[in-house]
Amino acid sequence: MNGLDKLFNPESIAVIGASNQKGSVGFSLMKNLIGSGYKGTVYPVNPNRKNVMGIQCHKSITDLPEEIDLAIIATPSFIVPSLVRECVSAKTKSAIIVSSGFGEIGKKGQELEREIASIVRGTGMRVLGPNCLGFIRPDKKINASFATRNALPGKMALISQSGALCSSILDWAIKQNVGFKYFISVGSMLNINFADLIEFIEQDKDVESIAIYMETIKDAKRFMDAAIRFSKSKPIIVAKSGRFNESAKAAISHTGSMAGNDAVFEAAFRRAGIVRVESVQDLLGCAKALAGQPLPKGNRLAIITNAGGPGVMATDAVIKNGCRIAALSNEAMAKLDRVLPKHWSRNNPIDVLGDAPPERYGKALNVVLKEKNVDGVIVILSPQAITRPAEVAKIVAEQAEKSKKTVLGCWMGESFVEPAREVLRKKGLPSYRTPEKAVRVFSYMNSYRENIANLYEKPKEIELGSKPSKKRIRAIFDKNLARKNRVLDEVDSKEILEEYGIPVNKTVFAANAKDAVKQARLLGFPIALKVVSDEITHKTDANAVSLNLASEKEVQNAFKKITSNARKAAPNAKIRGVSVQKMVAGSLELILGSKNDSVFGPVILFGMGGVATELFQDKSIGLPPLNQTLAKNIIRRTKVYKLLAGYRKKFKINLLELEKILIAFSQFVLDFPEIQEIDLNPIIVSKGKLYAVDARIVIGNQRNTGK
Amino acid sequence: MNGLDKLFNPESIAVIGASNQKGSVGFSLMKNLIGSGYKGTVYPVNPNRKNVMGIQCHKSITDLPEEIDLAIIATPSFIVPSLVRECVSAKTKSAIIVSSGFGEIGKKGQELEREIASIVRGTGMRVLGPNCLGFIRPDKKINASFATRNALPGKMALISQSGALCSSILDWAIKQNVGFKYFISVGSMLNINFADLIEFIEQDKDVESIAIYMETIKDAKRFMDAAIRFSKSKPIIVAKSGRFNESAKAAISHTGSMAGNDAVFEAAFRRAGIVRVESVQDLLGCAKALAGQPLPKGNRLAIITNAGGPGVMATDAVIKNGCRIAALSNEAMAKLDRVLPKHWSRNNPIDVLGDAPPERYGKALNVVLKEKNVDGVIVILSPQAITRPAEVAKIVAEQAEKSKKTVLGCWMGESFVEPAREVLRKKGLPSYRTPEKAVRVFSYMNSYRENIANLYEKPKEIELGSKPSKKRIRAIFDKNLARKNRVLDEVDSKEILEEYGIPVNKTVFAANAKDAVKQARLLGFPIALKVVSDEITHKTDANAVSLNLASEKEVQNAFKKITSNARKAAPNAKIRGVSVQKMVAGSLELILGSKNDSVFGPVILFGMGGVATELFQDKSIGLPPLNQTLAKNIIRRTKVYKLLAGYRKKFKINLLELEKILIAFSQFVLDFPEIQEIDLNPIIVSKGKLYAVDARIVIGNQRNTGK
Repeated sequence: MNGLDKLFNPESIAVIGASNQKGSVGFSLMKNLIGSGYKGTVYPVNPNRKNVMGIQCHKSITDLPEEIDLAIIATPSFIVPSLVRECVSAKTKSAIIVSSGFGEIGKKGQELEREIASIVRGTGMRVLGPNCLGFIRPDKKINASFATRNALPGKMALISQSGALCSSILDWAIKQNVGFKYFISVGSMLNINFADLIEFIEQDKDVESIAIYMETIKDAKRFMDAAIRFSKSKPIIVAKSGRFNESAKAAISHTGSMAGNDAVFEAAFRRAGIVRVESVQDLLGCAKALAGQPLPKGNRLAIITNAGGPGVMATDAVIKNGCRIAALSNEAMAKLDRVLPKHWSRNNPIDVLGDAPPERYGKALNVVLKEKNVDGVIVILSPQAITRPAEVAKIVAEQAEKSKKTVLGCWMGESFVEPAREVLRKKGLPSYRTPEKAVRVFSYMNSYRENIANLYEKPKEIELGSKPSKKRIRAIFDKNLARKNRVLDEVDSKEILEEYGIPVNKTVFAANAKDAVKQARLLGFPIALKVVSDEITHKTDANAVSLNLASEKEVQNAFKKITSNARKAAPNAKIRGVSVQKMVAGSLELILGSKNDSVFGPVILFGMGGVATELFQDKSIGLPPLNQTLAKNIIRRTKVYKLLAGYRKKFKINLLELEKILIAFSQFVLDFPEIQEIDLNPIIVSKGKLYAVDARIVIGNQRNTGK
Repeated sequence: MNGLDKLFNPESIAVIGASNQKGSVGFSLMKNLIGSGYKGTVYPVNPNRKNVMGIQCHKSITDLPEEIDLAIIATPSFIVPSLVRECVSAKTKSAIIVSSGFGEIGKKGQELEREIASIVRGTGMRVLGPNCLGFIRPDKKINASFATRNALPGKMALISQSGALCSSILDWAIKQNVGFKYFISVGSMLNINFADLIEFIEQDKDVESIAIYMETIKDAKRFMDAAIRFSKSKPIIVAKSGRFNESAKAAISHTGSMAGNDAVFEAAFRRAGIVRVESVQDLLGCAKALAGQPLPKGNRLAIITNAGGPGVMATDAVIKNGCRIAALSNEAMAKLDRVLPKHWSRNNPIDVLGDAPPERYGKALNVVLKEKNVDGVIVILSPQAITRPAEVAKIVAEQAEKSKKTVLGCWMGESFVEPAREVLRKKGLPSYRTPEKAVRVFSYMNSYRENIANLYEKPKEIELGSKPSKKRIRAIFDKNLARKNRVLDEVDSKEILEEYGIPVNKTVFAANAKDAVKQARLLGFPIALKVVSDEITHKTDANAVSLNLASEKEVQNAFKKITSNARKAAPNAKIRGVSVQKMVAGSLELILGSKNDSVFGPVILFGMGGVATELFQDKSIGLPPLNQTLAKNIIRRTKVYKLLAGYRKKFKINLLELEKILIAFSQFVLDFPEIQEIDLNPIIVSKGKLYAVDARIVIGNQRNTGK
């Protein structure tokens, strides 16, 4: 227990700022609490009133005849800190600050938040908000909110970071007959955040699922731990906005600019087994299905429909969402031949034809529910002249109830099919207005199943075969920091990577032309030369890179050209020399990198390099540490994986080698918290082998660790 | 007029197969026609009944006291031909065949269709169906269908290729208060197809838009002509299913396999100015907005919202749909500062805050409607404690009415905002349940504006600078056809392309090693050698390609190796020799091709070549003939365009040259109807120049010309 029990199950509630004025928050709070069946005591508190709604009003929480479980504060923000102080001295167990005028209005509000946080610290009092609507708990008839709508009782816990959305969500939920165990407006999470709530809800066996509308999170580490634990037994569904809100901060590496904040959230959700849906409207529909239907064992769908068009739409959606149209076995086809009219489609989608009576739907569903190649069924009904929508609903829901397979309904239309929807609702079969939505929900269910399978999987230990000398690496860092250099040059970067067994092309430093020629001779031609200077990070832009040098003469000339170009491009730069490296031939380029996300700390990015990096954004993100399963998954989510796995023979590699590189890389990132960004770009695929031919490690003094 | 006036405005209707049996189609038809206000005469026809619904029944249409404008046939399919014959002899002007049991059940049904087509041919009688629901025309109170729902009167024409979907669409339309001038179920289009209907509807000035649910089309050429003409003044909106139904036919070229049927539809729609929406549900919402609101002049949206979350969701949707969040001018910001509370977001989305009264919405809307940087506004309302949804609706709708900018509403929730939605409906302001949908509709409106701008544009004539000798090309075709070869070799293919001024790397034929060496010497090294054999189309798979040959010796050896490998791979192939060509250096590859689509005839495909072709499907499709505008648009729709336009300097080309290549290529395809497929793959970008280094032309005796 984390002290939230008194908040969500209070025996006494004080409303500070209670009011008789209609339309005011203090009035709405009282109206929602009084006379609604709540079994505890409600105390209005307001120094300016004698009574509110006919109930005696007290001047301060310190005047009340008992210690209070929950104080709801609805006053202007500037007096909230003193009120919280009073709550603490009155031994109030918990509080909701519904007032706005805090962090969201800027500095002044942030100061108020800090003040409240410091008042509360160490007291054990828990605070929901500020800038929230409160919460509703229908089973105990507690509506501790100023929402304009009430919630139906049910088994879903909903947490919304937007108070303004709550009424719309409640409105939709009522319309869809969706009920809640908890409906919580979380506000700006001064004291109680998502992790606290997930941990609290986890204790409540009644809850079937958590649905969250999220804008951002605080305390990523605890959130991940709580979410992973919860997801293992029940689903968390999240609608997060800000999908395209790219971080505006300038990044030194490609990885930095490509691993946008939202892509990292996506990776974190996947890692935690969280189902991410596209919109708030999908939240409820998806949560309903996840709670009410068995999870599919795979992505193979059968579609039963009485109309061709919607069957095709469903098929489109199946492919778009990465699921599959189940290939029916010969036995199933033979059975369907027996129960369907002669001219049925003989195909999946199974068209039971426009004149289908309820029994025909029933028989067809019975066959596919017993079919081994089917993981889930979507039953579509488009009302036609002699269709009996409600009777079909009844027979379908009854069949579904007996089966362990996922069944979702799609009764198309409005008033004509409304009675049928009512039947489905009562029988607990989730149904949707369009085939697209039903298919999307199925795909969410399947991805939840895949994600939690990953959570349970115990990957094999992988022997990396290299024992990095951390001391040696730290010495390289220190050497650079001593001369105030944060962006390690290629020679240093590659030396460090080699410590972790990450393959690089041999690269050495040369201070002058003579030295460069000597090193080139030792490495063997063709050779690449690149300038080495702390002040020049973009070597190509400075025309300070020379490739494919075939002879000693060419190396000598290149040295001169590169250093003189570099001097022209950056007159104040100190040119330390050049890096000399053997050219690696290969036309496929990969990228592997890491950046330090402001919310989650270090993240790993893998993808196709070269032109494709920015043009096609073929990338995949994961959070360290990685095991083999996680590394595999990162690789497989890219398109370039197809090539690496041998789609065109010439780029085929040993995937185990790449997985090891990712694991070692993630280990490196975790071993050295001072790493800010890394780019291995490109890693060239050359005759089945991998070579990081350019590398850049950026270090700092500290970093956000997501903790 | 195309003879459809009697069908859609009949003074007399005969129902052949009229019935008293509830639930039967013959009964539903009568029920929908009788006593509903239709001003003409309805004659039931049925040899087995004396009367239907109390009305005298005739044995045959030939027995009726007058010539009939419209006969509706609802009998088993096998007797339909004889009934149609009777209609013809009774001089019936038009017919609807609602019966099923035709093309959709296979061969036997197709024969019936052919029989009916031949009976009707030349008689001038027009036939809707078979396998359709009929049509509804609310203004004349004609419900010539067996639909279970009726349509409200309005100004939209809806055509559905799926009869089974009609009831659902009607149901949705009633719920959304959308009315129709025509609601037509088109069935299998034996005699009346989309083109006929569009041409007919074009004459009706009342109609504001056409919405189509489409599965496929017949007579593509006429469809395109009719659609282009209509789109120029009023929108056609199409929901087409079968998006992912790839043609299963084996294709010889990449183009053939990549230009899937649906992608060609997409290109055709764009060309015709048709707005394609994603789902049937979007049809009505989009048609409503296109008919009721001014078209946006660009893609810059302002969002006004009383809640942060939905504002972020709208922003996500704006970016996802390729629109832009308008950057407000300093003047507009200053004006907003004056009308909004101190702590407003100072940003677009414009957050008018949770306590926004109607007037504040009104003032903010007034500012952005006058702002030059704004093309359209989405007004979002999420009901909060003191929100007055209906009053906001009124003020917003009134402002919108006075403006020439696009305004769409999004009132979130259900019963709480329903009265407000009613206000918006009455005032004619389109509104949607979610920000995502409102933004999507705006983006549809903007793409309609772009498409019709293209329709009106008169592109400059481009001088291609080459006068192809058709005679010479025909001679090459004939030479190949004479030896029964349909897949032209590289030497022949490139010779033909050069006629059209399409740049290729010089490629010559060599029958033996000595000849190959001589040609190589003339061309200059490095050289590529590829086998030439009518029987070997996949040269690389046969190991019969040798690249980067640097000397005469290497060419000599390569010739031996290639021909011997080819013999091993295809023992029965006749090896004619090799092609000798100069290597072109360059790391960016493009593809240009053509295929013969089963519906639309020849199509052009352009995109990124090499690995990207299949991995990223970076391609764009257009229909010939191309002018410069169309060629430009094709190129710009690819991602590789960014590179060609200079994003990374090294791939920058003169885009005019590429446009000329596309125009010449499209001319070539049209000049020679025997062309089945062409692949120029790859075209290499080498130092700003383009060279088709592999080419394959596939010819046949005839082709589908889309006519």
